[in-house]
Amino acid sequence: MKAFLECVPCVLNQIIKILRKKVKNQKKREKILLDVLRCFSTIQLSSVTPPELTHEGHSILRKHLGNKDFYKEEKEESNKEALALVPKLEKTIRQSKNKLHDALLLAIAGNIIDYGPEHKFDINKTLRLVLKKKLSGKQFNLFRKKIKGSKRLLYICDNAGEIVFDRLLIEYLIENYDLEVTVAVKSKPVLNDALIEDARFIKLDKFVGVIESGSVTAGTSLDKVNKEFKDAYDKADIVIAKGQGNFETLPHDKKIFFLLMVKCAHLALATNLKYGEIVLWSKS
Amino acid sequence: MKAFLECVPCVLNQIIKILRKKVKNQKKREKILLDVLRCFSTIQLSSVTPPELTHEGHSILRKHLGNKDFYKEEKEESNKEALALVPKLEKTIRQSKNKLHDALLLAIAGNIIDYGPEHKFDINKTLRLVLKKKLSGKQFNLFRKKIKGSKRLLYICDNAGEIVFDRLLIEYLIENYDLEVTVAVKSKPVLNDALIEDARFIKLDKFVGVIESGSVTAGTSLDKVNKEFKDAYDKADIVIAKGQGNFETLPHDKKIFFLLMVKCAHLALATNLKYGEIVLWSKS
Repeated sequence: MKAFLECVPCVLNQIIKILRKKVKNQKKREKILLDVLRCFSTIQLSSVTPPELTHEGHSILRKHLGNKDFYKEEKEESNKEALALVPKLEKTIRQSKNKLHDALLLAIAGNIIDYGPEHKFDINKTLRLVLKKKLSGKQFNLFRKKIKGSKRLLYICDNAGEIVFDRLLIEYLIENYDLEVTVAVKSKPVLNDALIEDARFIKLDKFVGVIESGSVTAGTSLDKVNKEFKDAYDKADIVIAKGQGNFETLPHDKKIFFLLMVKCAHLALATNLKYGEIVLWSKS
Repeated sequence: MKAFLECVPCVLNQIIKILRKKVKNQKKREKILLDVLRCFSTIQLSSVTPPELTHEGHSILRKHLGNKDFYKEEKEESNKEALALVPKLEKTIRQSKNKLHDALLLAIAGNIIDYGPEHKFDINKTLRLVLKKKLSGKQFNLFRKKIKGSKRLLYICDNAGEIVFDRLLIEYLIENYDLEVTVAVKSKPVLNDALIEDARFIKLDKFVGVIESGSVTAGTSLDKVNKEFKDAYDKADIVIAKGQGNFETLPHDKKIFFLLMVKCAHLALATNLKYGEIVLWSKS
């Protein structure tokens, strides 16, 4: 999926937020912003994905600010916040009448934890709202059928914090299906996306294999991943890909099920998905 | 007042909206947007006001699209919508216990009609809400004292549609104070700002002198106005200036009373005004 015109101001707003937080000198902030504008003015928008545009902007930031993890504190914070919810989340799944459905719902609820786009969130309120939702019956049935017949699952994570919710879904899948699961996280800091250290912090690596995808942009472009990821992707019978970035970059292949909240009105318009809605989607 | 970093994505969003409306070819939209980015990448933000930044962006639009009035239809529409409200607005002022205060409130309510920033509006709902507000007692008393002692008023308009609300305030002032009033509008199309044709359409020119300011950007920079405006400004004992653009560009001189709704969170932060609030403000 190619970048919209509106991706430019959206990414700039993200970058300005980082500048306000990480750069004290106003002249320096200005200089970096102008550098980003100069860079963007040379990019053919119809030839990049939204995450690639973000990546170009962040490359300029790194050139000026060094190779920092701009969201380190927020990621640690959201991992901790999400871990504190685990007993509650486990109870919710245990008491659910449709455990698979609700474990999927919760995994998407976790996707609302996102410091990239302009979303403040209240986890508890979000949980209450999300648990009232219903996934598309058609898509859910497709997923249930596919997961039953699969041996190998590749689970592609999105954000820190969110991966705690992913862990619960993965635990549920392992307990109830005969699956070999590989979990993929990013190789380098990009926005608030989960890294191997986040997976370790929430002890995801204790019961499934966790690999780095090689992707250094939001989402996962298959022409930029490492061999280990590519092998896991090729061998997988089913792939679960979290978040809008993956939806924007991965091929819309039948074996991939996307779990996301639609955080962008323009993406919604272009795909017939509903803005603000939680979605389980696979090309059927 | 100098541009904030955040003015860049805000102005870009405005420009993209115009591109989507006025340019059909996606490649052409992209090309123009990249041209705007290139232009912005050369501007020292700390040396321009927000309206000057908008102006630079619109200059690129005009270079590609010709000297068009991008908001012509919207302006006509909002003039008509506001005119239809006149009997109701007149009745509100007639029945008010504090007519001057409420005529000021309504004039600010009119400022919510604005296609520039990201505001959809419902005029009737807005009126109900605004009429519950109270202007700062200190500022209102300052204004009342000043208007009583003044002979010449210069009234600087902002948007089309809004000027109908301005007309009611001006009528009230003329009826109740011994004032010679000059009204200033923009000289060329800029966003949805009122032009001389809007003033004529709502018959403002029937009972006060209406002049063009010479300003071709949002707001009014005194170093860019024409002689007629400068004379009116110098001779005025009191100036009423509408909208955020004027607040951002005119000097904060004691004789100017700004009437505006604070439409930008960054402006609010920088000035200690409250975001979304309606404000009568003069440097006291």
